[in-house]
Amino acid sequence: MRTTTGWQSTDGSTALRKVTVERRELRTDDIAVRVDHCGVCHSDLHALHGLGEGTLIPGHEFTGTVVATGPDAGRFAVGDRVAVGNIVDSCGSCPLCARGQENYCEAFPTLTYGGTDRVDGTPTQGAYTREYVLREAFAHRLPDGLDPAAAAPLMCAGVTVWEPLRAAGIGPGSRVAVAGLGGLGHLAVKFAVAFGAEVTVLSRTTAKAGDARALGAAGLLPTTDERRTAEARGRFDLIVDTISVPHDVAPLLELLTLDGTLSLVGHLGEVQVNVLDLCVGRKKLTSAGSGGLPATAEMLEFCAEHGITAEVEVLPSAQVGEALERLERGDVRYRFVLDMSDLDG
Amino acid sequence: MRTTTGWQSTDGSTALRKVTVERRELRTDDIAVRVDHCGVCHSDLHALHGLGEGTLIPGHEFTGTVVATGPDAGRFAVGDRVAVGNIVDSCGSCPLCARGQENYCEAFPTLTYGGTDRVDGTPTQGAYTREYVLREAFAHRLPDGLDPAAAAPLMCAGVTVWEPLRAAGIGPGSRVAVAGLGGLGHLAVKFAVAFGAEVTVLSRTTAKAGDARALGAAGLLPTTDERRTAEARGRFDLIVDTISVPHDVAPLLELLTLDGTLSLVGHLGEVQVNVLDLCVGRKKLTSAGSGGLPATAEMLEFCAEHGITAEVEVLPSAQVGEALERLERGDVRYRFVLDMSDLDG
Repeated sequence: MRTTTGWQSTDGSTALRKVTVERRELRTDDIAVRVDHCGVCHSDLHALHGLGEGTLIPGHEFTGTVVATGPDAGRFAVGDRVAVGNIVDSCGSCPLCARGQENYCEAFPTLTYGGTDRVDGTPTQGAYTREYVLREAFAHRLPDGLDPAAAAPLMCAGVTVWEPLRAAGIGPGSRVAVAGLGGLGHLAVKFAVAFGAEVTVLSRTTAKAGDARALGAAGLLPTTDERRTAEARGRFDLIVDTISVPHDVAPLLELLTLDGTLSLVGHLGEVQVNVLDLCVGRKKLTSAGSGGLPATAEMLEFCAEHGITAEVEVLPSAQVGEALERLERGDVRYRFVLDMSDLDG
Repeated sequence: MRTTTGWQSTDGSTALRKVTVERRELRTDDIAVRVDHCGVCHSDLHALHGLGEGTLIPGHEFTGTVVATGPDAGRFAVGDRVAVGNIVDSCGSCPLCARGQENYCEAFPTLTYGGTDRVDGTPTQGAYTREYVLREAFAHRLPDGLDPAAAAPLMCAGVTVWEPLRAAGIGPGSRVAVAGLGGLGHLAVKFAVAFGAEVTVLSRTTAKAGDARALGAAGLLPTTDERRTAEARGRFDLIVDTISVPHDVAPLLELLTLDGTLSLVGHLGEVQVNVLDLCVGRKKLTSAGSGGLPATAEMLEFCAEHGITAEVEVLPSAQVGEALERLERGDVRYRFVLDMSDLDG
């Protein structure tokens, strides 16, 4: 076994403790990655809150440096910069894997943490650690020019909003709205703007209007303003809804144009819909979560070309507890990223 | 005023009474149509059940013969065969009318019955009558070769299932499932088969397996058979759900492939969805209701080319009560059509 150090919760609290973590010896197609930066995702909070009695090491959007390669791992060399998202393996043979949507693998993908290794059946432990070992097929080359700290959130938050924008064929002439301006939302704005769309941020107040414009949005529509929302009825081809708490989707459906799409990526729970709200205008309700390997690679290339990374606040990994607490109360612009180098000390 | 006769409910019951009905004098762009055949739609039952104290003449899918034309009504001549659906006017100037989706008119389309005339504000009275007067723009030429009785249900049931099949781009190689094999469902099967798709009927039992095959379906999947439904997971590009009562959509979403669509056209009420069921496979939930003028015209051309009409049981209009009662208990294969000629007697 290899050993490294990382941050573990034993009671579901956000006060993580530094622990020694075992990583497997490299299999033939594995690489070992020194984790340099790991983003702090809402999913990490959810996982901690749902933990109960067990232990957990979160972290599933990270960048780092290859430090060892298995004999059949030929894509990367020691010293290469890589990026990894929220899945680290899949069956490889089902129709969805065949279509490059390993994230929807019919045999269930192996999650970066809280999953089960397909070979030895052990639980996977996340990237709030100084080293991660995975099959090289599930690592991506981090393009030159992308800051490794600011690129880490692309691997979960980024590709999650990339998918609905691509599925809807967003481009010049499209009108896109983004509901909620956090980790997912701000990347949805950046992508949609780079695709050439006219982008509007939907928010309860105008407080974030300046931020929205700074990100490239044409404007902000305050959803509490009845006159302005009435004027925007039927306006948008796509709404990417990144709001992470349960909420009524009917007012958002009203803002869609004919054949428009509401993609719910923030809250993956139960939602009540009146089918008539879909019927009038033949609107679509959909969702997406992370992305497959080809889409993730495509997104990284696009980000390198357009100079897109997340807006991040980088903290030493020892401040992970502060990051989780501030994330919980929404005090973040727009994503916390942990600098794992302090684990070397 | 012109006068005609028709079948009216005064108490919401399905025992309609024969009454004299006033029709407006022709406006410049109006035509008067002798109603020869009118389909009996589930919406008619819903409208009757929701009637309360008022009076109602249902009927919104009919074929007939032009008997008079206004001075500016140049599309039709007396004697022409026409077909009319569930809308008879719209604003004509909103973005949705401009896109030929008068059925989703932002100022609300004028319904064939239970609507409000845009000129004089009177309530519209449906086509369970011997004559109907409407703007000629909302009448369609009934193509030669289509039986007028069997064509009547195309105008509501037909175009309602035509829309989601066209919106999903169904063609050769597509796999389509149709849930429920009634008035809407049997036409969805016929259209999807004619588009070249492989079609499966979803039904609780195998009782309708022979009917499904007779309509051109490749087979019937009994949704109560856990082994066979498990085998069909991820199979369909589109499911047209024509079930007219509230039901759980989660088992249907499981049958969709990546980016597949579940279109709910049978029950337009509240539905509970777990967003995770949409997320895994990036599936879409949508709906549709009737169709715009261009789509309706296109559908009629397609029906003429492929010899598609509804399977109907034709009854003299005096038996409208029997038709409604049998429809209510599902005793119909697949659509009742009233022959209005008995009103001449």
